[in-house]
Amino acid sequence: MTAIGIYGSGGRMGRAIQAALELAGARFAGGAEAQDDPLPLARAADVLVDFSNAAGLDAHLAAARATGTPIVIGTTGLSVAQHEAIDAAAGEIAVLQTGNTSLGVTLLATLVREAAARLGPDWDIEIVEMHHRHKVDAPSGTALLLGEAAASGRGSTLSELRVDERVGLVGARTEGTIGLAALRGGSVVGDHNVILAGEGERIELGHYAQDRSIFARGAVKAALWLAGQPAGRYRMGDVLGL
Amino acid sequence: MTAIGIYGSGGRMGRAIQAALELAGARFAGGAEAQDDPLPLARAADVLVDFSNAAGLDAHLAAARATGTPIVIGTTGLSVAQHEAIDAAAGEIAVLQTGNTSLGVTLLATLVREAAARLGPDWDIEIVEMHHRHKVDAPSGTALLLGEAAASGRGSTLSELRVDERVGLVGARTEGTIGLAALRGGSVVGDHNVILAGEGERIELGHYAQDRSIFARGAVKAALWLAGQPAGRYRMGDVLGL
Amino acid sequence: MTAIGIYGSGGRMGRAIQAALELAGARFAGGAEAQDDPLPLARAADVLVDFSNAAGLDAHLAAARATGTPIVIGTTGLSVAQHEAIDAAAGEIAVLQTGNTSLGVTLLATLVREAAARLGPDWDIEIVEMHHRHKVDAPSGTALLLGEAAASGRGSTLSELRVDERVGLVGARTEGTIGLAALRGGSVVGDHNVILAGEGERIELGHYAQDRSIFARGAVKAALWLAGQPAGRYRMGDVLGL
Amino acid sequence: MTAIGIYGSGGRMGRAIQAALELAGARFAGGAEAQDDPLPLARAADVLVDFSNAAGLDAHLAAARATGTPIVIGTTGLSVAQHEAIDAAAGEIAVLQTGNTSLGVTLLATLVREAAARLGPDWDIEIVEMHHRHKVDAPSGTALLLGEAAASGRGSTLSELRVDERVGLVGARTEGTIGLAALRGGSVVGDHNVILAGEGERIELGHYAQDRSIFARGAVKAALWLAGQPAGRYRMGDVLGL
Repeated sequence: MTAIGIYGSGGRMGRAIQAALELAGARFAGGAEAQDDPLPLARAADVLVDFSNAAGLDAHLAAARATGTPIVIGTTGLSVAQHEAIDAAAGEIAVLQTGNTSLGVTLLATLVREAAARLGPDWDIEIVEMHHRHKVDAPSGTALLLGEAAASGRGSTLSELRVDERVGLVGARTEGTIGLAALRGGSVVGDHNVILAGEGERIELGHYAQDRSIFARGAVKAALWLAGQPAGRYRMGDVLGL
Repeated sequence: MTAIGIYGSGGRMGRAIQAALELAGARFAGGAEAQDDPLPLARAADVLVDFSNAAGLDAHLAAARATGTPIVIGTTGLSVAQHEAIDAAAGEIAVLQTGNTSLGVTLLATLVREAAARLGPDWDIEIVEMHHRHKVDAPSGTALLLGEAAASGRGSTLSELRVDERVGLVGARTEGTIGLAALRGGSVVGDHNVILAGEGERIELGHYAQDRSIFARGAVKAALWLAGQPAGRYRMGDVLGL
Repeated sequence: MTAIGIYGSGGRMGRAIQAALELAGARFAGGAEAQDDPLPLARAADVLVDFSNAAGLDAHLAAARATGTPIVIGTTGLSVAQHEAIDAAAGEIAVLQTGNTSLGVTLLATLVREAAARLGPDWDIEIVEMHHRHKVDAPSGTALLLGEAAASGRGSTLSELRVDERVGLVGARTEGTIGLAALRGGSVVGDHNVILAGEGERIELGHYAQDRSIFARGAVKAALWLAGQPAGRYRMGDVLGL
Repeated sequence: MTAIGIYGSGGRMGRAIQAALELAGARFAGGAEAQDDPLPLARAADVLVDFSNAAGLDAHLAAARATGTPIVIGTTGLSVAQHEAIDAAAGEIAVLQTGNTSLGVTLLATLVREAAARLGPDWDIEIVEMHHRHKVDAPSGTALLLGEAAASGRGSTLSELRVDERVGLVGARTEGTIGLAALRGGSVVGDHNVILAGEGERIELGHYAQDRSIFARGAVKAALWLAGQPAGRYRMGDVLGL
């Protein structure tokens, strides 16, 4: 049974990952926080998961490298120097770094890129997302991730194609643009729908999150997969063989 | 068999109404355009339908009044004076004036008002609509109509509660507001969805138009209903007994 | 602050109701199980909630009646004699008995009845529900409740209009029937969508449950409302003023 | 400008294809019916489209082969011998044979296969379709096509995994099965939604047809693509580069 060690085990994601371990047939190798020596955990674990914070990452990555232990990095807000350190570590150990550990969203992004690439520019792309009333920013990070996937399928970037607001006399739609709309209300965890609308027909590719445990489950699945990989830098898509 | 006369019979709606007459079991009493004398048609018809334009309405209404013929007015862009003339005519004949002859939208607006009124302000209301790529304004008139229905269910008006744009750091949702979002793409005739999102549950009330013939069918249904009514000013909701 | 007493406080719903009390601004007056004397709790509470079981109901109802305390009964599987006992008690105290305490479902059923009644029989009604993979029966009780609401809007009963299976050469749809379809998968808590499909347009009325806490929240809301009512037998719809 | 010849030009699809030609920038090379000599049309056209019937196919295919003209075959109900004749012809000319010329459905089937293959068997697959009230069979051919795509992504066939009916005490869902449900109502042209439901999240991949012209448009797109291909037997997926 694979033993998973968690940096940041006391945080919300850290605790959710512990809860998800058993069901996935893995073992909890222990946890460590920022103030702890990271080496004992790195030695005890078959694979590490880091959901601490950017400040703690350097020490955790060094411990993983020193002990040759694969590591999944879900910590956000990394600096350019930290990305370079990850690249360097990937020459010796298996490292998977990602901003979104949901398997469903990872797969959907691939399907959206494929659909946008295959269907011509006469198929209009719109992305609508809905989240709970407490969310302070819009559109969601996942909507932007899906928008980038669509744009890359069209050989472009989201910043070039993006249209955010439609109020008043906005005129007819510009071919090739990608529209984004954000709904807010209730306790919705996260709904995303990508619409590709052609003449006389429509394709809709959607992801609907019921609770936040999906991120923990995806992180555990990524860790179990990474435990058997050679040195290298990986993405969530690799876990699904995409 | 009820005989229906059409002012503006050569326009898109006029022709669509002719096409819808037969299936509804009605008879075409004839049509007239702006340059024609409106009286012969008013005499020949059991009920009149006006889908001409605001400039022609005065003469059509006068003809209906002079002959005692009920009239459905679907012409838009009416002046205050024209609304007063309709009120005056309604003292003598049955008049139904409306900006939207779809039975489905008419019913949905009533359901939305009821839902908004019964559920407390802790249920957030969002309205999202989608139309074809050629539509130049946003949100759609129907979305605004549904927004007004929701606002009136809350004892307010849409202009007081309306939130149109959510881009960037917009902060948490303000209780009691009504969000509007517009999607554009392909050849979509008109989709509208009103979401009422509470803690842990959601109600969605939607209308999906497949083709524009629904407006003609609704106009014919309204005309057949109006043919049997006493003098008075009516709305589409009256046709459905709402 | 209204004090709510719970019969069956140790069960899943009993505990969920306790958790929902605080947020709703109510006070926990205490709980009692089947083996406890029900009278002390009935005296201590401003209003009672019973989610125990059919066997315990008689004693709980008698205690409520003896102390003049309003009672919400969510226990299922009641006998004819128990319904008669509730009717008798309702002559002296306020009693609300229901099989579904979700406010959203309660409202939706009313909207569905209204829509079915207003739209003619040329609007076909279909109900599709989705629940998690562990659910053993189909269609769901809520789908049947919505089907009954639709049928009653048409002046009929679901058993007369119901069509459950469509596989193979089933022939064209019979006017006036109500189709039911059940999807099963994942951990879906409960989605219900009622489709009214006419020529060229469609109305969809849906309810989407995110977690089971909505039943507890609805029970608390019902209790707070019932605390101020005169003697009588009430339904969930009364809480929403339907 | 590519010249397209149509066998069966007087049928519903034949006429729809003629109407779709201009918008796609193609030229109508002429049409022929069952009683006509097929050779003159085959000589006049850059590419042929056959939407006649199985009885006429042999002569049309022979004419295409004799003149070296590529041919799109959308005729259904082909015999084993006819499929062998197509294979033989494909040694000399480009032939694309298909039962569904919608580009959207073709792409969706590929996405569904990919999703089913990447997500483990703990993601349950359900397919729900809706069509107009006049449709006499269920589920639709497109639903079966999507079900086969999902099954093949799981290394199986639909007949092995298919579950059609859920009424009464059906028990918990069996892992790995694919559920099918059919809704009927109004004038719905064809909606298909494939749901992949995992623990805590859901992916939905849907196609929504607004009118039947999409099949004609897809046939024209296929013809224009086929005109430039070397000899061989092709599928609709090849047109999209899938």
